[in-house]
Amino acid sequence: MEKPNLSKGTRDFNSTELYKRNYIIDVIKDNFAKFGFNPIETPSFEKSDTLLGKYGEEGERLIFKILKSGNFLKDIDSSSISQDNLPNLTRKIVDKALRYDLTVPFARYVVQNQNEINIPFKRYQIQNVWRADRPQKGRFREFLQCDADVIGSKSLMQEIDFICLFEKVFSDFNLEDCRIKINSRKILVAICEIYNCQEKFSTLINQLDKLDKLDKLDVKNNLLNEGFKNNTIDLIFDIIDLSSDYYKNQKKLKSIFSSSKIGREGISEIDFIFSFISKNKLNKSKLIFDIGLARGIDYYTGIIFEVLPPENISLGSIAGGGRYDNLTEIFGLKNMSGIGVSFGLDRLFLVLEELNLLPDFSGNSVKVMFLNFGKEFSYDIINFSNILRQNNIKCDFYPDPISIKKQLSYANKNQIPFVILFGDEEKEKKCFALKDMYSGIQDVLSLEKLVQKLKK
Amino acid sequence: MEKPNLSKGTRDFNSTELYKRNYIIDVIKDNFAKFGFNPIETPSFEKSDTLLGKYGEEGERLIFKILKSGNFLKDIDSSSISQDNLPNLTRKIVDKALRYDLTVPFARYVVQNQNEINIPFKRYQIQNVWRADRPQKGRFREFLQCDADVIGSKSLMQEIDFICLFEKVFSDFNLEDCRIKINSRKILVAICEIYNCQEKFSTLINQLDKLDKLDKLDVKNNLLNEGFKNNTIDLIFDIIDLSSDYYKNQKKLKSIFSSSKIGREGISEIDFIFSFISKNKLNKSKLIFDIGLARGIDYYTGIIFEVLPPENISLGSIAGGGRYDNLTEIFGLKNMSGIGVSFGLDRLFLVLEELNLLPDFSGNSVKVMFLNFGKEFSYDIINFSNILRQNNIKCDFYPDPISIKKQLSYANKNQIPFVILFGDEEKEKKCFALKDMYSGIQDVLSLEKLVQKLKK
Repeated sequence: MEKPNLSKGTRDFNSTELYKRNYIIDVIKDNFAKFGFNPIETPSFEKSDTLLGKYGEEGERLIFKILKSGNFLKDIDSSSISQDNLPNLTRKIVDKALRYDLTVPFARYVVQNQNEINIPFKRYQIQNVWRADRPQKGRFREFLQCDADVIGSKSLMQEIDFICLFEKVFSDFNLEDCRIKINSRKILVAICEIYNCQEKFSTLINQLDKLDKLDKLDVKNNLLNEGFKNNTIDLIFDIIDLSSDYYKNQKKLKSIFSSSKIGREGISEIDFIFSFISKNKLNKSKLIFDIGLARGIDYYTGIIFEVLPPENISLGSIAGGGRYDNLTEIFGLKNMSGIGVSFGLDRLFLVLEELNLLPDFSGNSVKVMFLNFGKEFSYDIINFSNILRQNNIKCDFYPDPISIKKQLSYANKNQIPFVILFGDEEKEKKCFALKDMYSGIQDVLSLEKLVQKLKK
Repeated sequence: MEKPNLSKGTRDFNSTELYKRNYIIDVIKDNFAKFGFNPIETPSFEKSDTLLGKYGEEGERLIFKILKSGNFLKDIDSSSISQDNLPNLTRKIVDKALRYDLTVPFARYVVQNQNEINIPFKRYQIQNVWRADRPQKGRFREFLQCDADVIGSKSLMQEIDFICLFEKVFSDFNLEDCRIKINSRKILVAICEIYNCQEKFSTLINQLDKLDKLDKLDVKNNLLNEGFKNNTIDLIFDIIDLSSDYYKNQKKLKSIFSSSKIGREGISEIDFIFSFISKNKLNKSKLIFDIGLARGIDYYTGIIFEVLPPENISLGSIAGGGRYDNLTEIFGLKNMSGIGVSFGLDRLFLVLEELNLLPDFSGNSVKVMFLNFGKEFSYDIINFSNILRQNNIKCDFYPDPISIKKQLSYANKNQIPFVILFGDEEKEKKCFALKDMYSGIQDVLSLEKLVQKLKK
């Protein structure tokens, strides 16, 4: 006898949880559509080659790999099977991997369907992704991402439009004070240029990316250990501090980056965005420039986003995204700059739940249940249930003629608002006794009146 | 440069396909709710132990297995790594597997949550399942199943209710003449009892299950090779023929199975169901008794269903299901008879498409697009787009100020019904030129009138 259990980091969802999750998904989906995005879906697993080498070292480790079907050792030299040869061996016994995000499969989709789609191509995609991460609050191994991306234009209008999308979605949830952080990868490239450490760009990104988990001092120490000079580290963190009040420190920042072409580009992107926001204020959310924002994923090249919940809630980011210039190039299609954002459903759920912003859903949506007075009524009960269903009424019947007390208790536990009594007397008189489970009031009704009353 | 490609047997879905699929899903979901089912979801992968040993030999082979993360060779003796030891080795390097159906995870869910749920427990579940099958028309390695199950009651009213559910779903699709085949596993057990071949029950099931793919003669030959006597085989097929007209051959069948307790039970189940149907006719579908129906899956014990499309369409079953008495027992919970059905979305899609029963969806749902007359209008365009979106209008803008001809061609290709011209003149006069892309008619409107017109 097995004791049933879930695989680590995965979850079941009951009806109440699903009604709430679907409410969140519907708000996001509805806004994606309003902003001009149409849905696509891609498979849960892709060829390993499609996914590997896109997410950085950390990401690579976290991808779930699917064993080849059949004899997976068929073409393998037994001498190559050893722990020293793990990556190579893995590549031979595995040919598929579970989706790690929705962006790389989207890039693959665009390249593969380039003759059918119209550029710029806007799509949304709401599907699960899987990461072999250590589970913690709000972090799971299977989780739903809600992504919207545009591919095929470099226009910064899109960056602004995504900020407006954030604002609109949060506003529809009545969720105030989310912090939309932005930065440009170009500014981080420029920092490495200015301080002569271009070869350490990835290291800088990886370390800055830890700022939300680690103490600032720890990150500074890490950078020191990675070969950054003390002096450089201090200057970098001074710049990060300056960025936190863009309007005030605009001039200083412009002058710091004036010597670097890519740095000027990055600052001018930030400028274009903040000018819009200064004229068209966000009502619910705050836009925050943060040069310390790096995002771990390899493919970003321009503006990056990360959205944090209101300050009184201690949870990681609830959304993120950014611009990637070269992602489709890996699959053979050049000059297709893309930009996209992703809402993490689980974090958003926790935030909305904590702030009491989720509507109340009862666990069971059945409107009425026939009590079962015995086998001789079986056919009638099924038949009348079907008539109610034909009239768009969610109707159930109790399947066994157990004691009426137990049947009523079942209806109660399931929060079913009405039950119907149909026994000898009702059958003879061609009527139905409808009992309101909240008030206890019982009405005797014809079929027509019954339908009328329950349809309300 | 990689050439992008999908993993075998998997698919991308574009927007048009998704709108159609979602239409089908919504009809099914809506009916599940009307029949008293509430949604749950389970994870895409389960511990291997949860899935293995439930689906028969064939099923076992087709389960996708996920490699352990990290050093999967850690605790493995190198001598045990050999092709002769594949099943053992697999068990050591794999600890998770992708869902093969929705029924076993549901049984696991029921046992794990037995203190929270109310029995009888009705749930629906619409999620992907994965099988490493050879892909063919209507058969994929990732596909969506739409399941509804009740657990905790043996009432045959549920068997009838599922037939009514089939009828109602097909009727909502305007799909006529689907053939709902039923049989009882008890009758197949009885056949083995009567002909003294109880130990060959699984073989009989496996062979009969091939009747929809193989010629009858081939199946007969297979049975012969498996050790069934010629005489027995002929008698079995005579009984199968008799079952095809239940009303006519009722008496003969009853007498054949009168000597077997389980046989009498099976026949009386069929009788209870057909009596209901004889009084409450199905309008759209046909109910067909077929003792040759076996269904390959191990866990069925009572009535089994399989629904075939109308005869003029050559496709396998579009739905199926049955009763299972002991599934939760494997996970430690006894006496929980369950019954459920599953709609296969892909086959249903093909059938409805072939019969032209799917509504027409355009690939893009955007209602209006702002043309882009230059950078100086960027902020205005974004701003007005947001006002339209606030008014529930699906609105987009062209992100780059390329030639108007090209922008119009983009709108055309995407079947966007309206575009808005907002240039120097409109800006000065605080108005918008709205162009109907079908008629070519252009109206000059205030913001208020614009919203009014597009909201319609």
